[in-house]
Order: sequence, then C-alpha cells, then structure tokens
Amino acid sequence: MRAKVPGLAGTAPAVQPGQGDSATRSSKLLHTAVSHSIFSPSISSAAERISAILQQEEMGDQKWPPLFVQLNELFSAASGLAWRETARWIKFEEKVEDGGERWSTPHVPVLYLHSLFELRMCLQEGTVLLDLDAHSFKEIIEKALSAQPDVWDPELQDCLAALLLCQPLHRTTTAPLRVLTELSLAPCREKAKSCPEPRTQFSETPLKEQLRNQFKKKLLPGAEVASVMVGEVDFLKKPFPVFLRLREAVTLGSLAEVALPSRFLFILLGPQAKAKAYHEIGRAMATLLTDELFQRIAWQAKHQEDLIAGIDEFLDELTVLPPGKWDPSDRIPPPRCLSSPNKRISMHLREWKSHCNGNTTAAKDRPSLAHLHTSEELERTGRLFGGLIQDIRRKAYWYRSDFSDAMHIQCLSAVLYIYLATVTNAITFGGMLGDATANMQGVLESFLGTAFAGSIFCLFSGQPLTILSSTGPVLVFERLLFSFSEDYGLDYLEFRLWIGLWVAFFGLVLVATEASHLVQYFTRFTEEGFCALISLIFIYDSLKKMLSLAEAFPINWHYRADDVTLYSCTCNLSVPGHVTAGNNTLSPPTTTLQQFRKLVSDFSIILAILIFCAIDAALGLETPKLLVPRELKPTNPMRGWIVFPFGANPWWICLASVVPAILVTILIFMDQQITAVILNRKEYKLQKGAGFHLDFLCVSLLMIVTSVMGLPWYVSATVISLAHMESLRKESTASAPGEQPEFLGIREQRLTGLVVFILTGVSVFMAPILKYIPMPVLYGVFLHMGVAALNSIQFTDRVRLLLMPAKHQPDHLYLRHVPLRRVHLFTFIQLLCLAILWVIKSTAAAIVFPVMLLALVGIRKALEFVFSLHDLSWLDNIMPAAARKEAEGKPHRKQEEQESNTDDESELMHHQGREINISVN
Amino acid sequence: MRAKVPGLAGTAPAVQPGQGDSATRSSKLLHTAVSHSIFSPSISSAAERISAILQQEEMGDQKWPPLFVQLNELFSAASGLAWRETARWIKFEEKVEDGGERWSTPHVPVLYLHSLFELRMCLQEGTVLLDLDAHSFKEIIEKALSAQPDVWDPELQDCLAALLLCQPLHRTTTAPLRVLTELSLAPCREKAKSCPEPRTQFSETPLKEQLRNQFKKKLLPGAEVASVMVGEVDFLKKPFPVFLRLREAVTLGSLAEVALPSRFLFILLGPQAKAKAYHEIGRAMATLLTDELFQRIAWQAKHQEDLIAGIDEFLDELTVLPPGKWDPSDRIPPPRCLSSPNKRISMHLREWKSHCNGNTTAAKDRPSLAHLHTSEELERTGRLFGGLIQDIRRKAYWYRSDFSDAMHIQCLSAVLYIYLATVTNAITFGGMLGDATANMQGVLESFLGTAFAGSIFCLFSGQPLTILSSTGPVLVFERLLFSFSEDYGLDYLEFRLWIGLWVAFFGLVLVATEASHLVQYFTRFTEEGFCALISLIFIYDSLKKMLSLAEAFPINWHYRADDVTLYSCTCNLSVPGHVTAGNNTLSPPTTTLQQFRKLVSDFSIILAILIFCAIDAALGLETPKLLVPRELKPTNPMRGWIVFPFGANPWWICLASVVPAILVTILIFMDQQITAVILNRKEYKLQKGAGFHLDFLCVSLLMIVTSVMGLPWYVSATVISLAHMESLRKESTASAPGEQPEFLGIREQRLTGLVVFILTGVSVFMAPILKYIPMPVLYGVFLHMGVAALNSIQFTDRVRLLLMPAKHQPDHLYLRHVPLRRVHLFTFIQLLCLAILWVIKSTAAAIVFPVMLLALVGIRKALEFVFSLHDLSWLDNIMPAAARKEAEGKPHRKQEEQESNTDDESELMHHQGREINISVN
Repeated sequence: MRAKVPGLAGTAPAVQPGQGDSATRSSKLLHTAVSHSIFSPSISSAAERISAILQQEEMGDQKWPPLFVQLNELFSAASGLAWRETARWIKFEEKVEDGGERWSTPHVPVLYLHSLFELRMCLQEGTVLLDLDAHSFKEIIEKALSAQPDVWDPELQDCLAALLLCQPLHRTTTAPLRVLTELSLAPCREKAKSCPEPRTQFSETPLKEQLRNQFKKKLLPGAEVASVMVGEVDFLKKPFPVFLRLREAVTLGSLAEVALPSRFLFILLGPQAKAKAYHEIGRAMATLLTDELFQRIAWQAKHQEDLIAGIDEFLDELTVLPPGKWDPSDRIPPPRCLSSPNKRISMHLREWKSHCNGNTTAAKDRPSLAHLHTSEELERTGRLFGGLIQDIRRKAYWYRSDFSDAMHIQCLSAVLYIYLATVTNAITFGGMLGDATANMQGVLESFLGTAFAGSIFCLFSGQPLTILSSTGPVLVFERLLFSFSEDYGLDYLEFRLWIGLWVAFFGLVLVATEASHLVQYFTRFTEEGFCALISLIFIYDSLKKMLSLAEAFPINWHYRADDVTLYSCTCNLSVPGHVTAGNNTLSPPTTTLQQFRKLVSDFSIILAILIFCAIDAALGLETPKLLVPRELKPTNPMRGWIVFPFGANPWWICLASVVPAILVTILIFMDQQITAVILNRKEYKLQKGAGFHLDFLCVSLLMIVTSVMGLPWYVSATVISLAHMESLRKESTASAPGEQPEFLGIREQRLTGLVVFILTGVSVFMAPILKYIPMPVLYGVFLHMGVAALNSIQFTDRVRLLLMPAKHQPDHLYLRHVPLRRVHLFTFIQLLCLAILWVIKSTAAAIVFPVMLLALVGIRKALEFVFSLHDLSWLDNIMPAAARKEAEGKPHRKQEEQESNTDDESELMHHQGREINISVN
Repeated sequence: MRAKVPGLAGTAPAVQPGQGDSATRSSKLLHTAVSHSIFSPSISSAAERISAILQQEEMGDQKWPPLFVQLNELFSAASGLAWRETARWIKFEEKVEDGGERWSTPHVPVLYLHSLFELRMCLQEGTVLLDLDAHSFKEIIEKALSAQPDVWDPELQDCLAALLLCQPLHRTTTAPLRVLTELSLAPCREKAKSCPEPRTQFSETPLKEQLRNQFKKKLLPGAEVASVMVGEVDFLKKPFPVFLRLREAVTLGSLAEVALPSRFLFILLGPQAKAKAYHEIGRAMATLLTDELFQRIAWQAKHQEDLIAGIDEFLDELTVLPPGKWDPSDRIPPPRCLSSPNKRISMHLREWKSHCNGNTTAAKDRPSLAHLHTSEELERTGRLFGGLIQDIRRKAYWYRSDFSDAMHIQCLSAVLYIYLATVTNAITFGGMLGDATANMQGVLESFLGTAFAGSIFCLFSGQPLTILSSTGPVLVFERLLFSFSEDYGLDYLEFRLWIGLWVAFFGLVLVATEASHLVQYFTRFTEEGFCALISLIFIYDSLKKMLSLAEAFPINWHYRADDVTLYSCTCNLSVPGHVTAGNNTLSPPTTTLQQFRKLVSDFSIILAILIFCAIDAALGLETPKLLVPRELKPTNPMRGWIVFPFGANPWWICLASVVPAILVTILIFMDQQITAVILNRKEYKLQKGAGFHLDFLCVSLLMIVTSVMGLPWYVSATVISLAHMESLRKESTASAPGEQPEFLGIREQRLTGLVVFILTGVSVFMAPILKYIPMPVLYGVFLHMGVAALNSIQFTDRVRLLLMPAKHQPDHLYLRHVPLRRVHLFTFIQLLCLAILWVIKSTAAAIVFPVMLLALVGIRKALEFVFSLHDLSWLDNIMPAAARKEAEGKPHRKQEEQESNTDDESELMHHQGREINISVN
C-alpha cells in the first residue's frame, strides 16, 4: 500500500514520550499514524526510524532466529490463582478452546484495532528493558520490578514477584492446557487487598512435559521463545506493563510449553474487571511479535521509541474489516500463499531510498512477466554445439546425486505406477504398430525398444524425468510409410532405416546450431494445445478400448430375469480410473492415522490398481488380462534383429528418404521439445536445470540404433512424463500450523526412470505375474493420466468458463484483468486449433501434423494483432520479440497501471502459486 | 467488543475542529479513538455524541431508507477526462474488474486503516453541508463551491464546476462500465494548468440505460443513492473534499447507474499523483456509508462533529488483519450469517444507559439458552382442555390462509414427491401388516386408511404439515396382538377395536389434562435418538428390500463371457437414491439458466424419479413394478368394513383391553409428540404456530374410526413429514449481492397434505399409470429420505468426529466450548441408547419400545449428573427444571463467562444459523 502513496507524510515532529500530562499524551498518541497523508507531503518520523534500523541490518546482513510466541493468562481457579497457556503463534494463531483440552485450527489472528492502540500505550507508558542481562526468571523479574522504583512501592513489588515467580504444577496432562503456576491468595498486610502467597518457587529446569512436547517439531531449528503474560489482580490500581529483551536467550524453566531459550517477555498485569481487555492486548502483542518486520525492529531496537515506531509502521500497513460486515468470532483460515516477508522489508528500504533519491525507481518494480520463460539454459552461445556443451557441463555436476537422490520410498511408488503405465503403453503401441506394419514392428519390438531407448535416455539425457514412448504422430507416420512401401514394392525396414539415419543427421545439425533456442516461442498457448490434444487422445483411447471390449462382449439389454443378475452387480469395477482420480485429487483421507496417511497418498494409484486386481481375482471375473510376449524373437519371422542398409531397395532410396526425413525431423523436434518445455516449467522448481540440447541429441542418436534394429522410434511422452513428475513431488513437512506445506520441487534423479525401463525389459519374463492384471484396470490408469493432465492446464478452466454464468465463475485472476469476452475469444481460438489438430491427426492428412504444430506457434504470434499484450500476459506468456517491444514501449504506458504495481505483484505471486497447485496436482 | 470493557474512556475534552495550526490539528486527530482505554476510566466524547443521536432516534422511531452506494472515479481517457463507475455497494462491495466489463463477485470490503484516517481528516478539513436545499446537480455543485468562498478562487471554482457538471456520454453499452462524463482539457488562462472545458451540460433526466438496469431489482423499495466521486486533476494544489446531505432526495440524472433519488454526495478532488490514495479514501467513504450505525448518524447529524464521531465509533469497532498474514488482494467472501445491525445499535444504547445507571444490566444480555424450547403453545393454562381451546383459537385464525397460501408451483412438486413416498409407505406397511395379521389388514386397508386418516388430519389438525403413516412400533404391536389373539382364540379385530377405543379415551384424557406440556422435556437428545432410529430404519429397510430383490434374482458371479455383459452395464440404476441425494444436497447446478434453475432444484427429486422411470421403460428392464390394489373390497374376504364391538369375544375383553391400551397410548403419545416437537422446531420459523393438543386430539379421534373400520392406526411419520417440510422451504429472492438468500420459513398450508392423501385414495384407480414405476426407484426415494433426515441432525456430525483426528475436525462451535472427550462421551451414550432401541425394536421385546422412548427422557435427565449445564447447553437443550436452577445459580457463575457475553451471543447466532442450514437442507 505504501508504495502507492509515495512521499506523503506529516510535518509533525518526532514523538517525545513521557512528557506532559495524560490528556496531552493521549492526544499525541496516534499522530504519527496519520502523518502520512494526502494533506501533507513529507515522510513520517516512524518510517524514518524503521528505515534507519532496516538499513543498518542490511549492512550487517544478520540472521534472526524464528520466534515461537506463547500467551499465558492468569485465571482464578478454585484453589487460587493459576497461570494457563491460552494461545500460541508461529505464523498463525492457535487458541486453547473453551474446554481447555483442544487447540483450535490455526487461523489468521484478527485483532481489535482498539487493542493495538492500547498496546501502543502500554509500550509507551510501561517499562521497556532492552538487552537485559539476566540468567534466570527470578533475576529477570527482580530487575524488571526495580527498573521503576519510584512507581511501585516495595509491597506491591513483593506481590508482583510472588505472582510471577511460582512453581508450575502441571496437574493436567492432556494436550494444550498447562497450569503453569498456582498461588493462594493471602490478604496483603496493610491494604486489605489479597496478595498471592507463592507455594513453591519457579523451577529453572525444564519439565518432563516440556521435553516430551511433540510441538517442538513444528519449530525451525534455533527458534527462540517470546512469552506474553497478562492477567488481572485486585491489588493493583493501575496497569503494570513490561517489555523485555534479553541480551542472551535463556531457557526459562516451564514458562513456555517447549523447552527453548526465551528472548522476549511482555508482562501486563492490571486492576480487575478488565480481563478481556488484557487478553486482547496480549493477543495484539503476540501477533505483533509474529510480524516479520516488527521482529526485526524488536531485535534491534535501541530505545523505547523504536518499538513505538515499529507499532506505528504495523498500524500503517493494517487492513481492516468493517464492523457488521464480518463476524469477529469467525476464524479466517490461513491463505494458501503469502508474499514473502523479505519483499515487504525490501519494499520498505526501497521506498525510503526512493524518497531520498527522488521518485524514479517505481517503474522497475514490475515483475518482468515477459521473461518468465527465458531461462539460462536457452541462452544462445553462438558457437557450434555450444548449448550442448553447456548442457553436459551442467548435468555432469549433478550426475552422482542423480542416483543418491533416489533413496526415498516415494520413488518406489513412482516406479510401480510409471512401470504399469509404460508397459500398458508399450503393449498398446506395440499392438497398433504391429497392426499398421504387418507385424514388422510388434509388441516384442515395442517392449525391447522401450526398455533400451528409455534406459539409455535416463542414463544420458538432460532431463532424466522424461519418459520416452512411441507417440501417436509417429504411429501415423509408420502406417503411411508402410503402405507406401507396399504400394511401390519397397522394403519397409530398409527405407525406414535411411529415413532414421537422415533424421539423426538433421537432429545433430539442429543440436549443433542450438535450434532448441526456438522453444522460447512455445508459449502456454502452444503447450496447452499440445497437452490437451495428447490428454484427449489418452482419454479417448481408453474409453474406446473399453467400449470395444463391450462390443466384443455385447451388453444384453433384453435378458430374462432368470438368466442374469439385475441388482447391484459390480460391473463398474471396470473403470477404476475414476476411483483412482478421486483418490489423488480430492483432499487427503481424514480417517487414517497421520503416520500412515502420507504413505497411502503416495501409493494411492498403486493401491487402487492392486485393490481392483484383487477384486477381479477374488470374484473370478473373466476379464481380458495383460498378455506380454514370452519369447525373445522378432514378431514377424520374416525379419531379423539387424536391418541392412542396402540390398532390397534401389540405391537412390538413401537419397530420396531425405524428403520424408525432413517431415519426421519436424515431428520429432516439435514432439520432443514441447514436452521438454512443459516438463521444465519454472513452477516445478527444478534444481538441476534442463538440457534441451542434450535431450535432443539423445533422441537423435537413439534414432540410429532403433532404425538399425527395426525397433519403434521414441520421443518424450507428455502425459506419462507429467505423471512421473507428479509422483515425485516433494513437499515440506515441518511447516508452522496453518501454513500450507510448501511445494519444494521434484525428486530429480535418474533411477526411477532407469528401473522402470529395466523392469519393462524384464517384463518379457514376468508373464506369469503380469497375467493377473486385467486390461480394464490399465485403461483406468490411462484414463486417470489423461484426466489429470487435462485438469492441470488453465485451458480446461477457461473451457469451463464458457459454460458458466458470470455470477458463478470462480475468481480467477485473469478474469479480474481481462474482459470476459476476450477470455472467451482466446479459449475459442484454442478450441478451434485443437479441433483442427484432432481432425488432422485422425485423417490421412496426419503426415502434416508436425507442420500444424509449428503452425500453432504462428497462430499464437498472429494473436498479438488480436489481443493486447496486457491481455496476453494474463492468458499466455509473452513471446520474446513482443517482450522486447513491450519493454521499450513501457514509458508510454498509463501511469495508472504503474501505480498499481505492488497490487499486480502480489496478485501475480498468487497467480503463480495457484498455477503450481493446479498443474502439479 | 465494547461491552467487555465497560466504562473506560478518555478524559480529553470534546474536539474543537478548525482551530490551531495544522500540526496541532493532526496531533489531535485521533485522540478520541484511544480515549476508551485501560489507562483511563471515563466514556469518550464520540460515544456520548453517538448515543445522544441514537436515543433521539429511539424516541422518534423513524425508518431510514436503504442506501445504494456508488463510487465514480475520474480517469484520463484518450479523448479527455472521463468519470467512470468503479465499484458499488449495497451490503458488500462489487468492483468493476480491470477489463471494465465485469463485476467482481461481492466481497467483504477490506480497507486500509490509513484511508480511514485520511477520510476522517477529509471530513474534518473539508466542506460539510447538511440538509442542503437543492433540486438539481448544478444547484448542488454551485452551493457546494460557494460554501467556502475564501478557500477557492473563482477560476478554480469554474474548473471544478466544469469537471463535475458534464454530459454523460455512455459510449459503452456493456454491463458495468459507464463513461459518465467526458471533458476536453483546455489550458487555464493564467496558471498554465489545464482546466476541463465542458462539452455539454449534465443531463437532469435519467437515461435509457439507467431505466433498463436490472440491478434495481436487487434494491429494496424506497432505496436512495449515495454517490462518492473521487479523482486527481492537475489544476488543484490541495484536496477539495465535500460531504453533502440533501434535505430532499433528488434524482440526479445519470450520476448513479440506477435512476433513484440521491441523498448523500461525497466529492474528493485533489492534486495529481495520488489517484490510488483518493481511490482508497473513496472506498472507505462508501464502506462507511454502508455501515448501518454510521448511516443513522449520517441521517441525523446536525454538525460536522457528529460525522467525525460516527467515524470514531466505526474505528472503535474495527477488527484488523495484520500485514503479512493476509493478502489484501484476496477477496473475502461474504459470511453466511451476520448479526443484525439493530443489535449493534441497541447494544450501543444499552451500554450508554448502563454507563449512566451504573453497570448492573450486563448479566441480562445473555440469550436465554434455556428457554429456546419453551414456546407459548406449551404454556399450561391449568384448565380442562385449556390447551386444546387455545390451539383451536390459534389455528382458526389462519384457516383461510391455509388454503390460499398453497398457490405456488413449489407445492406441486411437494405433492408429487410426498405422494410417491406416501404410496410407497402405504404399500410397504400394508404388505407387512397383511403378513403380520393374515391379511386382516392388508394393502387396500392401508391405502384407504392412509387416505382417510391423512385427509382428516390435514383438514383439522394443529400442524397440517405432518404426514400420518403407520409406523414401525405400531406394526410390531399389531403383530404381537394378532398372535396373542390366535393363541387364545380371540377375535383379533374385535379385541383391537376395544384397545383402540380405550386408547382414544386415554388420548382424550391426555388432551384434557394438557399432557402435551410434557414435550418440553423432549430435548435434542431425545429428538435425535428417535429421529436417528427412524432414519436408520428407513435406510435399513430400503437396502434390505434391494438386497432381497437381489436374492430373488441372484447375482451370477461365474457367468461366461458369451452369456452376459461385462462392461459398463447399467445395474447401478437400481439405486437412484444416491443420485437423488446428490441432486438435492450438493450446490445448485451452475450451467443451467437462472430462471430455470430454481424450478429444476424444486423438482429435483421428481425429475430423478421420472428420469429413472424413463430409463427403465426405454431399456425395457424387467424390474418389479409398483402394484396397487384395483378393487375396493377388504383384503381378507372373512371380514367386512365395520367391526362390531361384541359377539366374538367374551364380554370382559372390553375391560381387559385397558392393559394393552395403556402401552399403545404411551407409544402413540411418544411417537406423535416427538415428531411434533421435531416439526415445530424454532429454526423452521413457522408463523402459524403449533397445535400439540389439537394434533393429539385428531390422532385419538382417528383411532376410533380406524378401529371400528379395521384400518391401520396412524401417527405422525417423522421422516416423511420432514421431507414434506423441506420440499416447502421459502427463501428470499431479492437479497443484496453477496448476501445469502434468507430462509424465510415453510409454506404452511393444508392443501399439499390434503391433495397427497386424496391422490393416495384415488391411486386405487390409477394402477395403469402407476405400474410403470419400478420399485427400486421408490426404495431410492426412501433411502434418500432416510439419508437426508440422518444428515440433518447434529448427532451424525458428532459420530463423524469419533472417526476423525482432531486436526481435521471442522470448526463446530460446540467443539470450541466443550472438551472433545466430553463430546465423545455424549455421542457414545447416544449411540448406546440408539443400539438398545434398535435391539428392542428388532426383538420380541418391541412391546416395551414406547416405554424405552420414555426412558430416553430419563437418561437425558440423568446426564445432568455426568455433564455440566454448560456442556449440555452446547450439546443439547437445557431441560425446563435445570433451566430454572441455572437461572437462579447465575450470580455464582464466574465473572469471566459473563464478560464474554457478546461473543457467546454472536457465536450462538451462528450456531443457530448453521443449525437451520443443516437441518432444513
């Protein structure tokens, strides 16, 4: 917010606390908060102080330990007074519920503005001791009480010390509630007021309950404690507020629920009948201490006024909920993603600097939307094989860890899941290839080729998470090539060998010239079009196969009741994909134990497969089962394991095959690189970098081997590779209550892929086990993968929007910025492209399919004439050329837009946050 | 919040604005906001002012029209400056999205605290004109500008007037965006600043677009407009804020998007580079004007200071979201229910009075949890038949409207739904009765009895929404009675006649003695136990019947593939209940047109039934169909239509039947009254009141007729009656955007029930149509009703909690207040009671079932020794006796609890709100 009203502040002088009578003080209390106004043009003193402190820090480059904040309150129990923990904070608030045996769900701490004002007064009027040298709680309390000897008479000091220094009793053992202290009330000698009489002294050593507390696991290492203690007592006539920072953090016995060293302490005791007010002030202090900016101030404050300035800055950034529009007792769940505190702090510094240097830097704040896509891997070196050499250098560094990083149970699950998908894929494409080429390439070739090409790729490629597979377009090409050979009496395999060799040659040329650089032009538009097409093919194929099975075993509508069953038979078992999808995409199951829960979710798909295999076996259903070849010999007895380059065809075929080879090269390049772009998206947070050039080199070289041996050709398979990555998601485990587990990235390694392909190869000998897997279960796996991949793209969301009345549309960010009819137009164009691609791939024109993929890039380029760059930046990425143009054109943009920079920034962050969640889920 | 810190305020004197220099002014700005502190004990001047204004209002008893607030902002377009609407408010905020063609979803307006401070300064520094006499926009602007002639020189005045008084152009026709004004910039003569040059003058007549605006429908009749206009211009050097209230509301041409009279106007124009700040101040003003309390202040303010006091009170009630814990760009969806504004206002008044009269009334604030249940209908008159006479009096008043209120399409849907349920019920119980009594009572008797008893009840009962039916316990009794008669050679029907006559007699005695008064002891514990039992019986029976059909047509597990179908056959059609349940309980479909949508949701169950009947017919499935009797003669040819009292049995049977009659009386009383209590719950918002005595009289009198004619006995059927009420829900249609449609109550009338029972009677002649309905579809209806009723009770939620780890439990309010293990214990006791009831009803001991129902009340009473009243008040209702005790014991309660009164109040409101949503859905 502050960035939008630059250079506005009050002319008022710095606060001079503690002078004048109470009325004057109260009227001065808040003037800094409004000094930053449209009515006056200079910066406030609070902001000045804060920026000075932060700048100091920036030079020192210090790290501050995270804080755990606990609120203890004084209650009157039957047997006397007692301290109890009532709430705690790491990032969000957890409250001890009324019953006292339960923590609330973590929620955003909603404060009363009033309490913050009162807290400010407490810090201003109360005792503030910074860098106190004390090594026990007793010492702390004594020093705190003696800091203002004129204010508190000795007797009151005794009472206060007695109240604060007492032995915790820990009578209750259930989770949150902790009776910290118990005191009996004894009448004070003179004032006829009850003064607590300590039973036992405060224990300095941590208690068993503290050491056993599992909550410690939620805290980051090195965390320190800030304790807030509030309560009402009848011997005080005015409030007693103390804020303390210890020079060295000290473990203060049983003060906090975890046995960690304490750093901050805030005490507020006061006269009776205001317990609710003290409670709210305590909450306000605790919330303030969880604020990253205030923490920094609190760490480095030199004077009381620094703390006051910290509160004022906190007040200045507050957002408020109007009364009557929101019920304060409703707990706001923590948001899914938040801007990092560092940004807030650096904004502070920048603003301060920009104020000093004049207001010139604001325009630079805008995140470069345009460059999201251009990564270091794709920079042009300008040398032959320059990109390849960089790729190899980059990946070689990680090579050892590519194996050690695979040591995790999750990888086992991924192997099983992807193995089943790969085998199914190998059988499907093997069957179809056999059908298309009169078994010149059959199921066995498919198994061997997949195993061989996949393993090699996993060992040497740039992105070993990629799963190689035959793909639809290649299949179509093979079909056309075979019938052409038949028609003109050519030897198919020999012809294909030459094409393969040429493709490999062209591939090498493309690698040498760093052609992968061009993938920068594959924006979201192209990716989504391609991904949607492949996903639809998966869904369509699995459904078609299911229906074709139903055709083979026709549905008997007009059966007689005495013939067959009518009620609740279990036929829907045969579509487990839906069940699997449900398992994976819905919220985690809530009824299983937590230790166990993560494992179940990791293995959800495997479990679904096993359950349905078991049901199939138990019921003895006569489903078609997975059949893998059992012998290692070519499917067609007419061919051997090596294809010779000359002999069967005329010599000029080796030259003529250049023409089809160009088409295949385009196809392979597009197919491979779009998938590579999708897999190497920024949002997957890959640490080890991509290897576009190296990947394509591997694919090209594999072309040679597979052509020579008469095996199918292989490129990256989008949907299976995505499923592979999804099954290797890493998420943070130790997050503060209420924080979303952070997506940490993908378990990047070469082993899962390698094992999958070795298993695929070995499958030829595993027929006795594999024969128990019903094919419908495997179609379910395919269906699930297709649906998951389709759901992961924004395009699907936008298609849904087409069918939704505006009122019910979700609050997508692009809808806030792009008019609905533009969104619809964009979606409609994408749908049209998809339809054209689908038609082309289904007809004989499939041969031009790779060219059509290239055309997608052209169409996207043409869209720049239809849509503004602003619209495209929300609906798509900006292409490199346009981004340059936009950067140049920036000064012409409307000021209004620049003013909303920070808004955009946080929205964009959200945008990306959501994107990650959508596409990885 | 304010109620919890009573009597705390600042000692500062009332604000005297406009005096002293700007630094002093700024430092005085906010002192009132903090004057209400733990450090000082008196009430603030702002609160004083507000309360004085509100008290004045209370005497006058005035009604204020609702306000529509619109924010217009000044933009620089290509052709000049332009006014555009950017947001609007009725209760929640709707923003014009960036693209300008779309309204955002309504959301809670989150403000920056800073903007509120700046707004306060605007009102303090700016021109405030209250009760301005002006009849056109021109006059308004001229008067506003001339109000401070010393501040604005004539040239600036011209510029401002030019800017404000321009002809709207309305170039865009799409929904929200409205270019209000367009001006060209002409350099001001002297200052070299650009001053707008008006093209045309402001139009005083409403435009076509305004008159066509459908948004007007969302506004309550009599609504008035408050316009907020903000913008930056380069000819101003300091801000120009004006707040206006018109003495008479005037329609100001095209100022607002709807052509309604304007009452308030806030203008803020200022120097450049602060557009964002002006925007936020404008939003703050608009939000302030939607606040019910501030609206009252604004209506009645006499001086500028009254408005300032209004803002201060608004600030005092604010809740804040800490920075970094919540992203301000996230829009908070409107809450489901809110406390009424009147409560806030009356709290204000009360607090003020309590301050004046001393702090004694706080304890009375607590909502009487204990008396939620005791309604006027159940008060004891102490006279014979006193309750009955009151019932008749009460219901007679509504008798005419009981027919006229049924004129709504929803009733047709209810009739069809309940008719099918009733017919199915009649067939089921008829079949079972026939089975139990050797067809002495069969399906035909069941049809006739249902039709006769139901119609009579609907015509004359106290609660005509009740659906009469045979019930399980009665069935068990008939079975026992019949076998007893067989064993001892007695005539069953004659014996039964005497029992029926005695029961009727006892019933009359109970009515005369106002025994229905006792239903106050039927707390939620009893209701839920009974309702859960009946729901489980429904679910169990429908599943049992389904499975028994499967037994009749056994499932052929080991079929051969060539015999039958395997894949995706349609057997799961036979459980349409799930589908139906889904239709009803999930969110409304989002893809159908809105005009159509409500209708579909009203008829969802009927549609589901029709669809599955159609599928059944289309596929020619050989399902068992609904078969109704076709002839009007007793099922057993041995009996006639009238049972004679003497002849077959010894004479003393007429006396001996007193013993079984007592049991039946208890059974009928419990069965009837628990259902009546459930149906007459407060949360259904019934307007026409209950009639416990009259209902029981009807049931008793019907006993005579059914006994004489040998028809089954009838009492209220819980589940079908609940379904009947649910299908007659009324909800508000014209609610402000973002407001939940309010549950208005039930369409209370006698016609739907009457038609249902007449149709049931006529069904005997409708066999040719009814024979197309497959029985499994009807079982689905039963299953749906059972599941819906089971889902509607808190008990089910609590059973789910038993299986959930604490972390994943939803934030139920009782969990905030009652320790989890006490909740579990309560649930466990209920489960145990339910299990015992289930066992008893399934065995021969079923005869004592009614006594066990009575025992439930005793068990609940005993629970008072196990649970504290506090726990019971959250988990159950308080019984009358305990409530009295609690009321007496109140002074002993801990102060802490009393302090949180208002919290409890709002929580309770939520609690009830949710309860309504759960149980009616």
